[in-house]
Amino acid sequence: MTAHDIIKAKRDGNTLTNDEIVFFADGVASGEIPDSQSAALLMALCLKGMNSSETAALASAMAVGGDRLDLSVLPGEVADKHSTGGIGDKTTLVVAPIVAACGINVAKMTDRYVCGAGLTADKLLSIPNLRLDFNAREMLAIANRYGLCLAETIGNLAPAEKKLGELRRLTATTECIPLIAASIMSKKIAAGTQNLVLDVKVGSGAPVKNVKDAKRLAREMVSIGSANNINVTALITDNNTPLGCAVGYSLEVIEAVNTLRGTGPADLTELCLALSAHLLHLCGNGTPDECLESAKSMMFNGLAFERFLWAVNAQGGDIGVLTDTTRFKKARFYRTLTAKRSGYISRIDAGECGRAAALLGAARKSCGAIDSAAGVVLEAKVGAFVKSGDIIATLYAENDCLFDGAEQAALGAFEFSREPSEPSKLIIDKVSNKN
Amino acid sequence: MTAHDIIKAKRDGNTLTNDEIVFFADGVASGEIPDSQSAALLMALCLKGMNSSETAALASAMAVGGDRLDLSVLPGEVADKHSTGGIGDKTTLVVAPIVAACGINVAKMTDRYVCGAGLTADKLLSIPNLRLDFNAREMLAIANRYGLCLAETIGNLAPAEKKLGELRRLTATTECIPLIAASIMSKKIAAGTQNLVLDVKVGSGAPVKNVKDAKRLAREMVSIGSANNINVTALITDNNTPLGCAVGYSLEVIEAVNTLRGTGPADLTELCLALSAHLLHLCGNGTPDECLESAKSMMFNGLAFERFLWAVNAQGGDIGVLTDTTRFKKARFYRTLTAKRSGYISRIDAGECGRAAALLGAARKSCGAIDSAAGVVLEAKVGAFVKSGDIIATLYAENDCLFDGAEQAALGAFEFSREPSEPSKLIIDKVSNKN
Repeated sequence: MTAHDIIKAKRDGNTLTNDEIVFFADGVASGEIPDSQSAALLMALCLKGMNSSETAALASAMAVGGDRLDLSVLPGEVADKHSTGGIGDKTTLVVAPIVAACGINVAKMTDRYVCGAGLTADKLLSIPNLRLDFNAREMLAIANRYGLCLAETIGNLAPAEKKLGELRRLTATTECIPLIAASIMSKKIAAGTQNLVLDVKVGSGAPVKNVKDAKRLAREMVSIGSANNINVTALITDNNTPLGCAVGYSLEVIEAVNTLRGTGPADLTELCLALSAHLLHLCGNGTPDECLESAKSMMFNGLAFERFLWAVNAQGGDIGVLTDTTRFKKARFYRTLTAKRSGYISRIDAGECGRAAALLGAARKSCGAIDSAAGVVLEAKVGAFVKSGDIIATLYAENDCLFDGAEQAALGAFEFSREPSEPSKLIIDKVSNKN
Repeated sequence: MTAHDIIKAKRDGNTLTNDEIVFFADGVASGEIPDSQSAALLMALCLKGMNSSETAALASAMAVGGDRLDLSVLPGEVADKHSTGGIGDKTTLVVAPIVAACGINVAKMTDRYVCGAGLTADKLLSIPNLRLDFNAREMLAIANRYGLCLAETIGNLAPAEKKLGELRRLTATTECIPLIAASIMSKKIAAGTQNLVLDVKVGSGAPVKNVKDAKRLAREMVSIGSANNINVTALITDNNTPLGCAVGYSLEVIEAVNTLRGTGPADLTELCLALSAHLLHLCGNGTPDECLESAKSMMFNGLAFERFLWAVNAQGGDIGVLTDTTRFKKARFYRTLTAKRSGYISRIDAGECGRAAALLGAARKSCGAIDSAAGVVLEAKVGAFVKSGDIIATLYAENDCLFDGAEQAALGAFEFSREPSEPSKLIIDKVSNKN
């Protein structure tokens, strides 16, 4: 067996065997297969497709050969939550503390150095002095003591996935559904995940643009979960409009804190509670209805927020900015955007909002520095009636020369109509391997 | 413009612009585009296809950025001949001297270090002391003086093509018709070719397996020739059966010498004369019929062979092995194969004969050493009637442990029938940009 044979087989549209996929992943992890061959195979997989067996085999094959996390040292059930990413998605910062407050351990790893829209790790790092760079032992110690640890992905987890992830970003093969599924689930397998709620975002702000692909992605991940004894529930959720109002780093942390304390935007609150309830149900904490009630209590009685403070404190972070969010570092400049006409807001395009935030400095460019206070805050949401001149958004930046381009993108995101329109559904569908 | 954008465009099935293709080829030549991105684009080009404009743009873009050959220092017309490769193909050794003997300069470059079946350069190197590693100046000096020089491809000709050729061999993208066309023609453009006869081989012994693909390849190359002021005639020729009788290095040189002297196998003689005549016609040496007559005369009056001796001598080679081919180094062992039944030979599979020769040592394995005397000689050709026990082939090797595997392959190449069958056409079609 050679890498050339495997590339040729996929080029010709054949189904790869488990042995071929293991040979490939091992060769990638060990460095024996050169980047050129890996890249050619990624493109062939992207264009010729992968069936569910191939996808599951790739997830398992990429999970091995590196560090593993032994979650069995933690008491009881352990929960994990993952989002495929979308504009305004700060749910992890809300869901993880809620679930932890319900007595379930959450030892969550999150990626950091990916170019483009902000990831959870980057948002968390807007909290002064917070550390994320723990090794497995330190991470488990914090999770064991406080029920919650939010860390960067530990060093050498799923090395083949890491390498292929880098190559996929270079080779325009990031959008391939089976590769996304295998990539996410390989890290969950390596991380020893037992119970997993997935937020599969779909729409203009998400990597997956249509519901059909989102459903396929959800089904593939749930199916890989079943093959690896992981309880998985995937919610397919809308990201044609930004989730919540804030898009940026500290702006999103502030919104997450408000939501944890019960005063967040309705859509974000609804989704965080649903994700928490489904995850609690997977962990055996009761019926779906009971779990939803538990999640709500933890939000409104302050225990979820308290749990978040414990974890941030344990990770070296300054909790002063969380108990008084006005203490977050402010952007040097802001600009308000007003409605040019009266009417009902019929659409706020998530993709354009993300682009506006990126133009303001709230995105990594080639893994460079980020402006933690930059971003966009929507002052009105879809469905609202606004009069001409009403403020509809505020932009924040370190440099006021950034406003013009960002304003154009942000204003372009808004659409208005004379009549109120039917609100689109936030939670579109659910796929689960546990009733 | 970024390499990522270009890969994405082709991944999505779009046609690349000339600027995009130039950006890509320049980036490959300069090393600015990493192998992973080049490999991904090659696979996308292979699976999504390239139209004629893209193919021509790639040929032109790959021709620049390295050394060029200035053939204008040679007097009169200059001719070149190229084959896409097949089993038993030693036509260059016959055509080049015939054309040179007719007064046309032939300064031909040929590749050497490619794994797999023997290339012209490797065959020539079975002549003791022969040099092929000339620089452009030396090559042109020999061609100027003797009308003929057969050299290795000079150092840095078409660097993007060289790099992409290496990547194509690694990534199972060698069979892609437009990539083959662009690759061959980019080197011809860089080499300053004016008149070119192409032998597009099709069949089990050739890279191109079906006539439709061969015709497309021929058309693409002729069309690139037109765009670059190169007179091109492409013959599409059968390689389901080996050309001539000999498959190996010195074995093929011996057969080429016999053919140059008018005593070669009929099929090889026919094709060499046709290729020579078409090339002479492109060079303006008369009507096709006149050119065929000139070529035949040079074969039968000994002047073509004499021209070959001049060139070999000028390149340092020992012409003694050519004037008396029994002086070529012999293989240590040989084995004869006999017919297991009586009947007409209905097929001798070129692919299997090539495999037998490779098993005997007459092919490069990972650019390692080759056995110059190893190979297969067919003692009967398609259409012949043989009796059970008649010798049908002889195998030659340096090590007799190689015979069993090779015998199986060689015998597997033969098919017999009770009735004589219609011989298949050697020259299937012709595409030309000159009447």
